[in-house]
Amino acid sequence: MAQGTARWTLNGLAQALGGEAVGPGDLPLERPAPAGGDDPLGITFAESGKYLAMAENSAVGAVIVGRSVSESSKPIIRVDNPRAAFGMVLAMSARPLPLDPGVHAAAVVDGSALIDPTASVGPFSVVCRGARIGPGVAVHPHCYVGENCVVGSGSILMPGVVLYQDVEIGERCLVHSGAVMGADGFGFAWDGTRQVKIPQVGGIRIGNDVEIGAGTTIDRATAGKTCIGDGAKLDNLIQIAHNTNVGRHTVIAAQSGISGSSRVGERNTLAGRVAISDHVSIGDDVVLGGRTGVLQDIKEPGIYLGYPAQPFREAMRSMSLVTKLPELLARLKKLEARVKELEGGGK
Amino acid sequence: MAQGTARWTLNGLAQALGGEAVGPGDLPLERPAPAGGDDPLGITFAESGKYLAMAENSAVGAVIVGRSVSESSKPIIRVDNPRAAFGMVLAMSARPLPLDPGVHAAAVVDGSALIDPTASVGPFSVVCRGARIGPGVAVHPHCYVGENCVVGSGSILMPGVVLYQDVEIGERCLVHSGAVMGADGFGFAWDGTRQVKIPQVGGIRIGNDVEIGAGTTIDRATAGKTCIGDGAKLDNLIQIAHNTNVGRHTVIAAQSGISGSSRVGERNTLAGRVAISDHVSIGDDVVLGGRTGVLQDIKEPGIYLGYPAQPFREAMRSMSLVTKLPELLARLKKLEARVKELEGGGK
Amino acid sequence: MAQGTARWTLNGLAQALGGEAVGPGDLPLERPAPAGGDDPLGITFAESGKYLAMAENSAVGAVIVGRSVSESSKPIIRVDNPRAAFGMVLAMSARPLPLDPGVHAAAVVDGSALIDPTASVGPFSVVCRGARIGPGVAVHPHCYVGENCVVGSGSILMPGVVLYQDVEIGERCLVHSGAVMGADGFGFAWDGTRQVKIPQVGGIRIGNDVEIGAGTTIDRATAGKTCIGDGAKLDNLIQIAHNTNVGRHTVIAAQSGISGSSRVGERNTLAGRVAISDHVSIGDDVVLGGRTGVLQDIKEPGIYLGYPAQPFREAMRSMSLVTKLPELLARLKKLEARVKELEGGGK
Repeated sequence: MAQGTARWTLNGLAQALGGEAVGPGDLPLERPAPAGGDDPLGITFAESGKYLAMAENSAVGAVIVGRSVSESSKPIIRVDNPRAAFGMVLAMSARPLPLDPGVHAAAVVDGSALIDPTASVGPFSVVCRGARIGPGVAVHPHCYVGENCVVGSGSILMPGVVLYQDVEIGERCLVHSGAVMGADGFGFAWDGTRQVKIPQVGGIRIGNDVEIGAGTTIDRATAGKTCIGDGAKLDNLIQIAHNTNVGRHTVIAAQSGISGSSRVGERNTLAGRVAISDHVSIGDDVVLGGRTGVLQDIKEPGIYLGYPAQPFREAMRSMSLVTKLPELLARLKKLEARVKELEGGGK
Repeated sequence: MAQGTARWTLNGLAQALGGEAVGPGDLPLERPAPAGGDDPLGITFAESGKYLAMAENSAVGAVIVGRSVSESSKPIIRVDNPRAAFGMVLAMSARPLPLDPGVHAAAVVDGSALIDPTASVGPFSVVCRGARIGPGVAVHPHCYVGENCVVGSGSILMPGVVLYQDVEIGERCLVHSGAVMGADGFGFAWDGTRQVKIPQVGGIRIGNDVEIGAGTTIDRATAGKTCIGDGAKLDNLIQIAHNTNVGRHTVIAAQSGISGSSRVGERNTLAGRVAISDHVSIGDDVVLGGRTGVLQDIKEPGIYLGYPAQPFREAMRSMSLVTKLPELLARLKKLEARVKELEGGGK
Repeated sequence: MAQGTARWTLNGLAQALGGEAVGPGDLPLERPAPAGGDDPLGITFAESGKYLAMAENSAVGAVIVGRSVSESSKPIIRVDNPRAAFGMVLAMSARPLPLDPGVHAAAVVDGSALIDPTASVGPFSVVCRGARIGPGVAVHPHCYVGENCVVGSGSILMPGVVLYQDVEIGERCLVHSGAVMGADGFGFAWDGTRQVKIPQVGGIRIGNDVEIGAGTTIDRATAGKTCIGDGAKLDNLIQIAHNTNVGRHTVIAAQSGISGSSRVGERNTLAGRVAISDHVSIGDDVVLGGRTGVLQDIKEPGIYLGYPAQPFREAMRSMSLVTKLPELLARLKKLEARVKELEGGGK
């Protein structure tokens, strides 16, 4: 982007999106704006009349709309799929965090570590003996890549990621700041006078195309591997205990936790703050609503909710009845009085 | 504090607090002590006879009391407002973490970053291109101040804070260690075979006088800004998702989470581990009790509790009835038996 | 371990475990394997026929079994206590994270800090004025040991631990990455226009043999000390608020939180995501099930569950009745209809 020049014009952006501009072709546009965003240099999108009206009532610069929209009080770009086109604008706006190529002079890298010449290691990062960093990998500042860890091709460790030991990360993964992988699983045995630590000596295997959120902790296995499957996406502040297995393409929202040795299937969706007990097995294609607590195996695909987890409709009904308990109690009391009266009358 | 000399004497402290000492004027006092604290060099406070008795039965050195207290078995300082006076003792005892002035030789600062000459940047911190650090700012060790981030006048980044990109922090803010601001919002779209990442390119705007707790994560917006209003206070291990808006002077206790695009009003109080769903709007002056789960908009000021959130009294009644469900069931069974008997008798 | 040579043979390992090998004595074995693990170079253990069958159906190299097992399709090592013997294999497999002896040239250590000559301080760690690091202590990279902090003999700070100020850690402790100790307690007072910070000037005292999990936050006291007793074990992502007291040998699982000034007794077990309100006191030998919310003191030893916490059996019964609320409602409705009929018939 040349100084003094906007990133895009309405016409230029329409062309890039394979769409049609209606409005001043040289309108300067700098960045995507959220629905309802109030940014004169922003471009947002609208999939419905409601959202278009919201945009028209805002200061946003322009709106991406469907082909069926013929006119608007705002400059528009007409496309086949407004959401997908907006996604393209987002992608065009993404900038990787800056990182100089090669190993920074202020990084500490063990002589036995293998770092691909196309990888980057930022200042104040530490790469320990036996570690292997693949082609195109970005290790941002303040990372600790421990002994015998592997970071696969194209993966990114954001600033301040910690990998203890024997942590294997696949290709094209993205690990956010503050994530800690490989801390000891939580295993102790009470010997009558104290908690005796059960040594935790296993590792972690993260598949390809996995994203791990900020502050998320994944513990090493007691023995063997804690595993996260290809394409899984984990949000922030999640706890994954030792010897857990998360299936491929499973999505886990923030503050969820999975206890030791549990297995979560493929293509699951765990909403925020879900909790799964230890040694539980969940099948494929399961959706767990927010704050669901799973205490027992779930075999059937479907949507579950509540604590303990129930099928969605039943759980919703139970939850809603909890809020009606005072009314139920009143009805019960009334009935007791009526029955007493009937009994009295019958005598 | 000279070696061998206590920080205060009873008389000296009484004078500093605008109070009246009763007891040995040269009694040495070193630090504030909590209620019930057992520290002969400590001074605590008592707002009631109960707390004064507790202090008298401890080894604490002296007690700050109200004017109505005439005597005690402990040395006392009589003041108008014991709590406020104790707050002054706390303030007199606070020491900022040590940090040398200027930019430490072992920090890495991009040439395009603007660092006010009165700011401090500690060892092993990284300040990226385009960042701006205002007057009097303290960037403690191991911080990452990313591209185009702004840290306003007088703000403090404790050791190990991460700001990704386009994160603006206002004036007089305090950000605790392990806080991560600007990691990607959690946005994916299932395309039938895999989760496709929705690029997250927005920023974060933190107002003035905001405190952010240790390990708290605030995600960048998809587009636009995730916003925290002036004077808001966030505790530890909180998750704030993309495009969320937290109003001014709102207080959020530990382990709470706010999902994407939700709005929390001004002067709200969220107790510990509150959860708010995505795209929810909460008005001003709302109090959410511990573990409340908000699934729908809340417009009226007031106190709410439960999951789903209800007004406080109703929620307390429902919660208490849950613990009485076995009794309700017993009453229902008994009633069924009695009705059966009546029906039998009626035939 | 020399290249080309396995760590153990079946015979060698049997001898080390005081057991008896049945199978090829020179069978190479490299590492412990979990139950059901599929590792030809792994050795697992089986305490029952079920687990032995599972191992026999896997690719695992060998199995540790009890003396009563005479034969198996797998190579076995017969011992008195298979679980304990497997624990020995785990212990034999543990490797400390690598750390060079002494203070690394790329660490920043204040001249007034006392570092025992047998302690190690890794690259990019900071040790502030007045800190004391005891014999054999390992301070891994990226740690911040703040002003006047003490780390006792044999303790280990994993990469990226932060200790603010006045944090005392006992002997033989293990603190995992991302743990933050000493951030400000969460104390504010509303003055009618803004939240006024109550200065937090106390410290933290951690006993001996304590383990603190990854990303766990322990706040400094307002005044006095936040205390964790000897032998306590804390998992990941736990919040311990200011002036809290955790008793000796208490075990706290991940994502739990204890609010300000609460006391948890000795030998307690808090399962995952337990929450304890502020100013609550819990006695000794209490077990709190997963997600229990404690709002009031608990004096009697025993198992508790639910929110609010109830004795275990009652809580289980209440929880299970919640899932039966739709059925209870149906029975109530039916009864209402029958009583109405009786009343109608009686008229």
